[in-house]
Amino acid sequence: MRVLVLNSGSSSIKYKLFDIVENKEKILDKGAVERIGEKIPDHRSAVNIISKKMDNQIEAVGHRIVHGGDKFSESVLIDDEVVKAIEHFSSLAPLHNPPSLLTLSESRRLLSNIPHVAVFDTAFYQTLPEYAYLYAIPYEFYERYRVRRYGFHGTSHRYVASEAARILKKGIDKLKIITCHLGNGCSITAVKHGKAVDTSMGFTPLEGLVMGSRSGDLDPAIIPFIMEKEKIDVNRVIDLLNKESGLLGISKISNDVREIVKKSKLNDKKAKLALDVFLYRIKKYIGAYASIMDGVDAVVFTGGIGENQPDLVRRVLKDTMLKDIKVLIIPTDEELMIARDTYRIIRKKRL
Amino acid sequence: MRVLVLNSGSSSIKYKLFDIVENKEKILDKGAVERIGEKIPDHRSAVNIISKKMDNQIEAVGHRIVHGGDKFSESVLIDDEVVKAIEHFSSLAPLHNPPSLLTLSESRRLLSNIPHVAVFDTAFYQTLPEYAYLYAIPYEFYERYRVRRYGFHGTSHRYVASEAARILKKGIDKLKIITCHLGNGCSITAVKHGKAVDTSMGFTPLEGLVMGSRSGDLDPAIIPFIMEKEKIDVNRVIDLLNKESGLLGISKISNDVREIVKKSKLNDKKAKLALDVFLYRIKKYIGAYASIMDGVDAVVFTGGIGENQPDLVRRVLKDTMLKDIKVLIIPTDEELMIARDTYRIIRKKRL
Repeated sequence: MRVLVLNSGSSSIKYKLFDIVENKEKILDKGAVERIGEKIPDHRSAVNIISKKMDNQIEAVGHRIVHGGDKFSESVLIDDEVVKAIEHFSSLAPLHNPPSLLTLSESRRLLSNIPHVAVFDTAFYQTLPEYAYLYAIPYEFYERYRVRRYGFHGTSHRYVASEAARILKKGIDKLKIITCHLGNGCSITAVKHGKAVDTSMGFTPLEGLVMGSRSGDLDPAIIPFIMEKEKIDVNRVIDLLNKESGLLGISKISNDVREIVKKSKLNDKKAKLALDVFLYRIKKYIGAYASIMDGVDAVVFTGGIGENQPDLVRRVLKDTMLKDIKVLIIPTDEELMIARDTYRIIRKKRL
Repeated sequence: MRVLVLNSGSSSIKYKLFDIVENKEKILDKGAVERIGEKIPDHRSAVNIISKKMDNQIEAVGHRIVHGGDKFSESVLIDDEVVKAIEHFSSLAPLHNPPSLLTLSESRRLLSNIPHVAVFDTAFYQTLPEYAYLYAIPYEFYERYRVRRYGFHGTSHRYVASEAARILKKGIDKLKIITCHLGNGCSITAVKHGKAVDTSMGFTPLEGLVMGSRSGDLDPAIIPFIMEKEKIDVNRVIDLLNKESGLLGISKISNDVREIVKKSKLNDKKAKLALDVFLYRIKKYIGAYASIMDGVDAVVFTGGIGENQPDLVRRVLKDTMLKDIKVLIIPTDEELMIARDTYRIIRKKRL
């Protein structure tokens, strides 16, 4: 089965074309249309460019959708109902869901005779227990506005957790795994017996680990304090926390961990400090998740940092009480996971 | 030595009079002046009422001061410089430092011939490593405004940690202890070899554990979301997070854990949920702190909840990977700790 995977960002669409036969996947083509909004007018045009590159043998399209709210606990075949639901959750992901919807509607128009599947970043976290996803805020904010922990990067965490089980030659239903996705965004997930039980990103991707330019966890009372001191409004503070914080905010060097590692080797004090804060936060989360799962069999690292900075991985796990765990570095592959889900859903439908 | 301890809150002053001979302390008198601002005009009048109850044999006064910023790493003899510094840190603790300052100045005026000592809630946390107290926000907010983790309840955590070492008959410098102060406010501290290395309250007492009416940890992006949805300003949101969240916010029953335990035994769903969220957060922190200390010898519970709810303590530690630790329930005594510090400082000065 020829499956096209479309991964829409705010100003780009990455695509991969897979040929899947039984459980073997082969990549036939891949690429990206970038600078949407500049060189390319919008996501519709981008989809047109991609579809022209494809021959007529695509049999299904898999779409990455960031926010599926609390409605989608797994990947689904797209129909008008599903599109409506994704639209509904745009208010929870105003930067991510709208471009995906444009991509989705245009590709459904152009490729109207084949099935389309939605794979949600949030779906993997619908197994979180209520006490793990609920914030200790007035309950009506959950009832009225669905304020809760959603979690993101779910497709990546799900992929590397299943890969870890395969590598360890054990059923995932027998394993307690902590997966660390450390890329531009960073998140960490506790996967107990194949199900996500907690994750560090929350209502939005701002919470949790220290990231390239995002603060992660924070005393919420810092927000009004900074507003008053700097005479700026709340949106500007949140902007600062998303774009000028994290590794960049502490180091004043870069949001790219490679630059910071380089400088820290030259004894740059702020670079070292940024790395220390970054690694320390990961260490705390690993301990927290080992505690709630009553142990851990394996810790998995993935994402640009996780895959390419083994020295940092070693530092995270040094002197951390967890002596008998397996440590795995596994390259993530969200597109492959999306292709597999799409294939599985279409096959099931055809049977 | 007769030591009077004054513990000023926003609308009350609690006092205890100790007689200390070598390392034995005896309580001679204790009490509180309450409803300051209603029945009693202000903290000055309250100090006058208390001082009239005392005979003329007080030899020293120990004051509890909430915020010592990053200037005071231990208790100090009060002089005009110290008063100025406490005034300076009022902007970081606008609800707590000003009433303490009133109490301080009036008692220094009335009892001008004896030494006064300041014991800071924050002092115990001045040993936190930089990577533990720094937030991953633009570094200039630390440089300009001293935005960092300060920690609170330090006197209580310090007291129960030292008591734990005494009970375990080991030097505190050989122990890794996690202390959980669970009262109206809740905080948890990692004490490694006698020194605090991390704590859950941060820049303000809002961060960290779920409390009676405080949210604790939260995705910071929830703040602008709630502002927009509810059409309220940032101060109102922070007010909600301090006064209408936590156990009260989830359960809609009470901020008092005893009420919630009662209702949960009657199978009230929200009461159960509030307890689950409350206990789960503690479990996460215990794991995190065990991870950063590379193990833990003892976990100590104190405060109204910690001392009186052994069933909850048991639930926190159930299935949490920590098998060989000591669990201790130790009643806290901040006033005793303040009296001891005062005695020690005065004696040292006299030698």
